[in-house]
Amino acid sequence: MDELIRGILKGDRRSVSRAISIVENEQVSYNAKKIVKEIFQYTGRAHIVGITGPPGIGKSTMIGNLSAMLSEKGRNVSVVAIDASSPFSGGSLLGNRIRMQESLTRHGVFMRSLANRGLKGGLSRSIWDTVKILDASGSDIIIVETVGAGQADLDVVNLADTVIMVLGPGLGDEIQAIKAGIMEIGTLFVINKMDLPGAFIAQKDIEETLAMSLKKDWNPPVVGVNSLTREGYEELIKEIDRHGEYAKGNSDLTFRKFRTELEITIDEELRSRFHQEIRSFLADSEKIKALMEKKTDPYSAAENLINNIA
Amino acid sequence: MDELIRGILKGDRRSVSRAISIVENEQVSYNAKKIVKEIFQYTGRAHIVGITGPPGIGKSTMIGNLSAMLSEKGRNVSVVAIDASSPFSGGSLLGNRIRMQESLTRHGVFMRSLANRGLKGGLSRSIWDTVKILDASGSDIIIVETVGAGQADLDVVNLADTVIMVLGPGLGDEIQAIKAGIMEIGTLFVINKMDLPGAFIAQKDIEETLAMSLKKDWNPPVVGVNSLTREGYEELIKEIDRHGEYAKGNSDLTFRKFRTELEITIDEELRSRFHQEIRSFLADSEKIKALMEKKTDPYSAAENLINNIA
Repeated sequence: MDELIRGILKGDRRSVSRAISIVENEQVSYNAKKIVKEIFQYTGRAHIVGITGPPGIGKSTMIGNLSAMLSEKGRNVSVVAIDASSPFSGGSLLGNRIRMQESLTRHGVFMRSLANRGLKGGLSRSIWDTVKILDASGSDIIIVETVGAGQADLDVVNLADTVIMVLGPGLGDEIQAIKAGIMEIGTLFVINKMDLPGAFIAQKDIEETLAMSLKKDWNPPVVGVNSLTREGYEELIKEIDRHGEYAKGNSDLTFRKFRTELEITIDEELRSRFHQEIRSFLADSEKIKALMEKKTDPYSAAENLINNIA
Repeated sequence: MDELIRGILKGDRRSVSRAISIVENEQVSYNAKKIVKEIFQYTGRAHIVGITGPPGIGKSTMIGNLSAMLSEKGRNVSVVAIDASSPFSGGSLLGNRIRMQESLTRHGVFMRSLANRGLKGGLSRSIWDTVKILDASGSDIIIVETVGAGQADLDVVNLADTVIMVLGPGLGDEIQAIKAGIMEIGTLFVINKMDLPGAFIAQKDIEETLAMSLKKDWNPPVVGVNSLTREGYEELIKEIDRHGEYAKGNSDLTFRKFRTELEITIDEELRSRFHQEIRSFLADSEKIKALMEKKTDPYSAAENLINNIA
C-alpha cells in the first residue's frame, strides 16, 4: 500500500490505475479509504473541469481536441469519463468514446472511464476519489465528462471548479429548458458545430439569456467552436484558464465544494457502517415473506431493523 | 389523514394526488410513512408495467396510445412518468410529455410526473410509494415511463412486473450494447416505427438474439407497432396481459421485488434516522474549514461523526 501511495505521488500511471480500481468499487473498502486519507494533503492543485451537455452534442470530440491542445502546451491532462447507468446512453456513445480514447492515447493523456454498476451506485463517491488520485498524481487539469443525463451530471457540477456546458444549433426544446433556469450550472458555455446553420442564432440566444441575469463577479462567456477545424479552441482554453484563476480565489466556491464532498462521504460511511447487518436482515427470507403476506409493511420492517442495529 | 387514506381507497383522484405529493418529498416524512403503512395491505392487485428505451424512440406516444386503448376496454389505467435529474433529457422530452398528457386527460387516465430534485434524490423510494398509492386506489394497470437514462431506469426494472423495452429502426450502436447483455431486462420488446425502413431488420435482429438464449419459462416476445396507425397495439396489449398472468404466478419474481423494495426502504430509513445529526455537523463551518486546511480528510471526518452518533 505504501508503495502504491508513493507511486501515485510520483505520477506513475500503473499506480494511478490500480488506485482508481480500488476506489471504484461499489462498496467503499478499507484500502480505498486509506488511499484517500494518505493522499488528501497533496490534493487541491489541479483545475477540475466538468463538461456536460445533451447526448450527441460532440462532448467526446471536444475533449479529444482540448486534451491534445492542452497537452501540446505542456500541461499534464487527465480525463475521467462517466458512463450513465443506463444501457442506452452507454451504447450510443461507445463509438465516440473509442475515437476519443485513441486521440488521447496518441497525446499521452491519461483517461479512465467510471461506470455505475450497482443498485445503489457508489458512483458519486468514486468520482470524487478518482479525481483526488489524479490530482495528487500531478495532473494540472482534470476533465470530467458526463453523458448529460442522470445523477452523475449533478455530481460533476458539484465537484468541478469550472463547468462547461456544451450546446449546439437546433436544440429547440432543450434550449428552452436551459433558459428556464439551468443557466446557473454553466460557468462557461460552448456552442459546438459553428459550421452548421443555426449555431450563430443559438450563440446569440444563450448570450441574450445570460445578459438578463448579470452577476457581479463572474459572467459566463459563450464561446463558439468548430471541432473539425479547431476554430475557437484557443479562445476556449483562454476562458477555461481565466475561470480557473477566478475559482481558485473564490473561497465560497471552495467551501461549498468541500461541504458537498463531506456530505457524500458521510452518507457512504453511514451505509458501510451498517452494511453487514442490513445484508443479514435481507438474507432472511422470512422477512421478505412477511411482506408478501402483508403481515408487515416495508416502512415498519425497516424501522424495526434500524431500531435494533442503530 | 384518515380521510386521505379513505379517499385513496375509494379511488378519489384529489386524495391520490395529495398523497403522492406527500410521498414525493426528498426526505421521507412521518405522514408519507403513515400513508404507506395504512394502504399497504390493499396493494398487490395492480399490474405494474415499466416502459423503457432510448430517448426519442417514441415512448410517450406509445403510452398515450396504450392508455387510451386500455381505457376504452374498461381498464383503470394510471401513468407515472419519471423525469431524469438532468436538465437536458427533461427539456427534450417536454413537448412529447405535453402531448401525452393531453391524450391521457381526454381518456380519463390519471397521470403524474415525478422529478428527481435533490442531491441524494429519494426518487427511488418515492416511485415505489407512488405506485403503491395508485395500486391501493384501484388502478388495474400502472404504466411507469422512464427517460431511458440513469438510476430511474434501474428502479423501474426492479419495480415493474412487466418491463417493455422499446426499440426502433436504425439504432446501430445501441442495439449492439443491448445485445451485449442487456436483453435480460426486457420481458417484452417493442419495435416502434414499423413504417420506417430498417424496422423489420431491427425486429429480426432482436428476435435472433433472443433465440440464442431461450429460457424454459418466459421467452420475451418481439412486437412491431406503428404508433400513427395503431397497428400492432392489440397484439401488444395481449402480450402485456399474458406476461401479467405469468408474473402473478411467479413467486420468485414477487420475492425479488419485495426484497428490493425493502432494501431501498431500509436505506432511506437509515438516512432519515441520522438526518438531523448529519445536518448539524455539516452546518458547522469549522468542520469544512478543517478539510480546506487539510487538517483532516473527508473519510476521517465522516468516521468521527459516525462513531459519535451511530
